[in-house]
Amino acid sequence: MNDDLASLIRTIPDFPKPGIQFRDITTLLLDPDGLATAVRRMVDATRGPVDLVAGIEARGFLFAAALAVPLRAGVLLIRKDGKLPGATIAEEYALEYGEDRIAMHADACAPGARVLLIDDLIATGGTARAAVRLLRRAGAEVGQAQFLVDLPDLGGADALRSDGIQVDALVSFPGH
Amino acid sequence: MNDDLASLIRTIPDFPKPGIQFRDITTLLLDPDGLATAVRRMVDATRGPVDLVAGIEARGFLFAAALAVPLRAGVLLIRKDGKLPGATIAEEYALEYGEDRIAMHADACAPGARVLLIDDLIATGGTARAAVRLLRRAGAEVGQAQFLVDLPDLGGADALRSDGIQVDALVSFPGH
Repeated sequence: MNDDLASLIRTIPDFPKPGIQFRDITTLLLDPDGLATAVRRMVDATRGPVDLVAGIEARGFLFAAALAVPLRAGVLLIRKDGKLPGATIAEEYALEYGEDRIAMHADACAPGARVLLIDDLIATGGTARAAVRLLRRAGAEVGQAQFLVDLPDLGGADALRSDGIQVDALVSFPGH
Repeated sequence: MNDDLASLIRTIPDFPKPGIQFRDITTLLLDPDGLATAVRRMVDATRGPVDLVAGIEARGFLFAAALAVPLRAGVLLIRKDGKLPGATIAEEYALEYGEDRIAMHADACAPGARVLLIDDLIATGGTARAAVRLLRRAGAEVGQAQFLVDLPDLGGADALRSDGIQVDALVSFPGH
């Protein structure tokens, strides 16, 4: 699975803190062929019809609309709590220290809407699993989640699979 | 210029504070035809070849990659200061009370790169003008800025034009 796309992602040591090897996708985004290839592969990996692509703030937004247009779907925003102007529902998730909350508009999806969840990277999966809980509370059918990058040793993709989600990633960096 | 797209944008009164009529584009994003139409019109309104589409965090990211793929361009991220992992350059801009800073990676664009600036909405233009200063410091040629929504009475589009930028918006809401 790792090939040309992996080589476009640079590694920044010790960001955001010592000991973390940050996988920086901005170098892939700057490359027109890399970006187009990533989007095309995500479209090709999509299973079945999709009504809404749910993008997680902020880097998930980059891929959400780029996928939604060729998939003939809409985009649903999963944002940090307090950013959306309408009535919202929210879910908490654990951080290394403390917790955080993500939210979506309470009226954003009809019951039974088929949702593809998108983010740039999955690590421990805390945010993505909270997004799935949120979408399911709203009545959505979340069948699949796609990521540009998976850090498989952190277990997030497997945890999402245990929630009944098909998980796909274009690039995998084991060892973290 | 206002037609079907304007009707897909809902107005939330008194957000984020009393007296502000918030133009909420999330209802347009949820609509597959509205989203596809917005992206297609932005692509059609693009003047000349573009090397990079610069998207302003966070809602600008939604359109940046969706435009970059059909334009055969890359995406350059303009983020809140402190969010980018590599070496950055930053610019300050005024808020109603105080100021804020946006940043880009210092190595994100080659001198002479032709850049299209994208955000979801232009109001006073403070963020967009800071983005133009940032991109020009990096050596970019910023020829055009596009927005889904313009609030013309707040003067941002005219201010950007006075900076030598071609400004286009798909929907205009006068009266603010």
